Amino acid sequence: MQFTLSELAQRLGAELKGNGDQIITGLNTLKSASATQVSFLANASYRSQLADTKAAAVIVNEQMAGEVPCAALVVANPYLVFAQLSQIFDNRPVMVSGIHPSATIAASAQVAEDVKIDANVSIGEHCVIGAGTEIGAGTVIGDHCVLGTDCLLRANVTLYHDVVLGDRVRIHSGAVIGADGFGFAPDKGQWHKIAQLGGVRIGSDVEIGANTCVDRGALGDTVIGDHVILDNLIQIAHNVKIGDGTAIAAHAAIAGSTIIGRHCTIAGCAGITGHLEICDGVHIAGMTVISKSITEPGAWASGTAQMPMQDWRRSATRFRQLDSMAKRLQQLEKRHEGKA
Amino acid sequence: MQFTLSELAQRLGAELKGNGDQIITGLNTLKSASATQVSFLANASYRSQLADTKAAAVIVNEQMAGEVPCAALVVANPYLVFAQLSQIFDNRPVMVSGIHPSATIAASAQVAEDVKIDANVSIGEHCVIGAGTEIGAGTVIGDHCVLGTDCLLRANVTLYHDVVLGDRVRIHSGAVIGADGFGFAPDKGQWHKIAQLGGVRIGSDVEIGANTCVDRGALGDTVIGDHVILDNLIQIAHNVKIGDGTAIAAHAAIAGSTIIGRHCTIAGCAGITGHLEICDGVHIAGMTVISKSITEPGAWASGTAQMPMQDWRRSATRFRQLDSMAKRLQQLEKRHEGKA
Amino acid sequence: MQFTLSELAQRLGAELKGNGDQIITGLNTLKSASATQVSFLANASYRSQLADTKAAAVIVNEQMAGEVPCAALVVANPYLVFAQLSQIFDNRPVMVSGIHPSATIAASAQVAEDVKIDANVSIGEHCVIGAGTEIGAGTVIGDHCVLGTDCLLRANVTLYHDVVLGDRVRIHSGAVIGADGFGFAPDKGQWHKIAQLGGVRIGSDVEIGANTCVDRGALGDTVIGDHVILDNLIQIAHNVKIGDGTAIAAHAAIAGSTIIGRHCTIAGCAGITGHLEICDGVHIAGMTVISKSITEPGAWASGTAQMPMQDWRRSATRFRQLDSMAKRLQQLEKRHEGKA
Repeated sequence: MQFTLSELAQRLGAELKGNGDQIITGLNTLKSASATQVSFLANASYRSQLADTKAAAVIVNEQMAGEVPCAALVVANPYLVFAQLSQIFDNRPVMVSGIHPSATIAASAQVAEDVKIDANVSIGEHCVIGAGTEIGAGTVIGDHCVLGTDCLLRANVTLYHDVVLGDRVRIHSGAVIGADGFGFAPDKGQWHKIAQLGGVRIGSDVEIGANTCVDRGALGDTVIGDHVILDNLIQIAHNVKIGDGTAIAAHAAIAGSTIIGRHCTIAGCAGITGHLEICDGVHIAGMTVISKSITEPGAWASGTAQMPMQDWRRSATRFRQLDSMAKRLQQLEKRHEGKA
Repeated sequence: MQFTLSELAQRLGAELKGNGDQIITGLNTLKSASATQVSFLANASYRSQLADTKAAAVIVNEQMAGEVPCAALVVANPYLVFAQLSQIFDNRPVMVSGIHPSATIAASAQVAEDVKIDANVSIGEHCVIGAGTEIGAGTVIGDHCVLGTDCLLRANVTLYHDVVLGDRVRIHSGAVIGADGFGFAPDKGQWHKIAQLGGVRIGSDVEIGANTCVDRGALGDTVIGDHVILDNLIQIAHNVKIGDGTAIAAHAAIAGSTIIGRHCTIAGCAGITGHLEICDGVHIAGMTVISKSITEPGAWASGTAQMPMQDWRRSATRFRQLDSMAKRLQQLEKRHEGKA
Repeated sequence: MQFTLSELAQRLGAELKGNGDQIITGLNTLKSASATQVSFLANASYRSQLADTKAAAVIVNEQMAGEVPCAALVVANPYLVFAQLSQIFDNRPVMVSGIHPSATIAASAQVAEDVKIDANVSIGEHCVIGAGTEIGAGTVIGDHCVLGTDCLLRANVTLYHDVVLGDRVRIHSGAVIGADGFGFAPDKGQWHKIAQLGGVRIGSDVEIGANTCVDRGALGDTVIGDHVILDNLIQIAHNVKIGDGTAIAAHAAIAGSTIIGRHCTIAGCAGITGHLEICDGVHIAGMTVISKSITEPGAWASGTAQMPMQDWRRSATRFRQLDSMAKRLQQLEKRHEGKA
């Protein structure tokens, strides 16, 4: 795969400053780029790396263009254009259209003509698989699922029954969509299972990471909006709703029936308890516990920050005495007031 | 699927107040129920939704029966009866009995007659598969496993060798039972693997969530009691023992050789270190770290609660100074005493 | 499987004190060992169990040898020798060499002669599979992967394209190696995917636990050194580098581009944010958040320790007031100084 710099400038809608005949074979960081690669400057903290880059060209915004020591691809949003360039050089092996002979597809399933279905895929009764959709080896799709157009399910994904995906949904290996929500009624020391009668509805342009779980609803569906991106190993419990454009990093967990707004960013390992509402535009820091609803946009955190172990032990011991410390402090203040 | 209200009352053992001829087609929440659906009131905090429900009938206890604006199904434990009703309306597609031709079953395996074994299932040597058990597509069962009657293993589950399940065990997709425990002896900067010679024994009426891991024992088995329910993405390390009726929510992790009592409830993202004993009837809050054994029933927590990020930064900074603060407070108290 | 004690002593390089003709059929803990089993004492805290053990022999170091009530296998490092003994008694069913007829192997793949490839395995174009490597049922290997000699991939593992494994790499079920890193450029409320163009390179003698995820690099590879051991359900994000001999316990998460040194030990549920450097020889405690680079060997922690819930509530409430408490304490000190 190679292009001239002017071809790339045109495809990216960038203003080219420099030699358009230069052959470009790929992209890389400012530090690692070779003389036939394009790099980018999206974050001012890497500005010092500009001078020494060996890249053929750098994607920059107008303000930085003057500092580029090679050709410049001038754009309004360098990181976005870098993303677009990465798509041009995408090296993912794409299957040829067709259905592998070892796939098991129910007779009642409606499968578009140009799908790509790999070895040992299993597709249940009454499924609808949209045009251009690709399904990796070993993936299992339960009955009554609907996959839109140009979806990409990698190998060993599992969809239970009644899961609906929009268009261009990408699901990574090991993800499980539509497993039973964790609903049980306790009685005399035993747990009586509540059948999980709802399904899962996922919007368009959604990405779901490896080994992430999205449980089916108990009554009514679990719902993930458009343009939601979920990293690996995330737990989305039954009847959660996630608004459009929200991003959630690895190992986060959202408990049952919680509603997450639009354009939230939830960092890794965060945990959100059930039956809450988180409004639009909330940021939650890594490993934060959220146990109350949030009604205003803004950033939230919990926990404490890293310390050398022996210092931490002392602080952790004092944490246990905090209430007593607070009361003693009040008492001292009172006595002081009394004397003043 | 539909029933008259009196049919349902009879099956649920409920006292019916209202028109028994009403046709019922499903169940739903008080807010969402339609005129042919049954709802339930199990939690007093939803009491205010009773008046406006459009449900045909509501499952309630005796005290609440008078407030129901439609038919009432009066029972002692409304949530339990709601669970039973959900089972009546369960819509999960059930396989027909039989073995899919693409399944690979060792000649030495003993498979009951009425099992349901889906595409690409693999069953190892000397396995025993009990009557009524259903195994989803792509599931792999190692040698010498025993599955009781009426178990349900969903698609893409993995059981290593020497895993024993009781009856009515449900395991969700992506779960891995019997992988090697994390046991290594360090020597000169390298880790020497300790072969994990034990197996996994799981009781009856157990549910194991999607992508949950239960490791095999190093010496002796990892043991999960009867009526234990495990949510998704849980880690159960080697030689852990979990008592009957304990419930563990998503993303919790229990390190090696820890013994959890009966009827404990462990909330999401909690972490329990190794070689501890947690007695019966303990509740552990979400994202709590437990590093000491617990000998009395009761509830435990660690960590701090959510705060706006900028307030949190100040508290987190002060946490580092806690020991110094405590000492300065003591000093002030002493000086004060001296003066008093 | 059985041996005389003198055969075992010879294989383990141990000095035998006692009857070498004793038949040994297995190994077990001091408490559980029977009269034909070997046990070990590697941790002084189990010393009190020596007197009552029913084991045929105990692996001990020189200092403890005198206290052993039965035969002794005297060695420098009892835990290491116990690991070696466990390998001698390993009971894992090993496949016979050969390729199951249901496996799908691309014509361009180079597969060594004595591999063991189980049912429904899928191997992509241009893969290289080394001698002695065993691949469990349902495992999917993408194009251009290289597996060294004597690797062991259990059932239902997924390798995306361009994943390179050294020799003797063991990967447990449900692990996903090479899924896309979580890289997106935000623009107008949408996330634009950055194609993840790098691969994953894993050294030799590495173990990767069940359902662990190691993402592929965005530009350049994600790299895991030799003798690294990863437990279950771990997240290793794109472009992370992990030094030789590092051990990471279950549910830990390492965010993008972070570099972990050699011989680190990271406990369960720990979270490390992106773009950090952790030097060699660092220990991170369970459920610790690391958000700043660490430049000196040593142990780190964050969070607070377990408390009864009602005590915890008071401390957690006071945590919110910590900054105010610190300021009031300063004020009291100043007033006191003024008066002194």
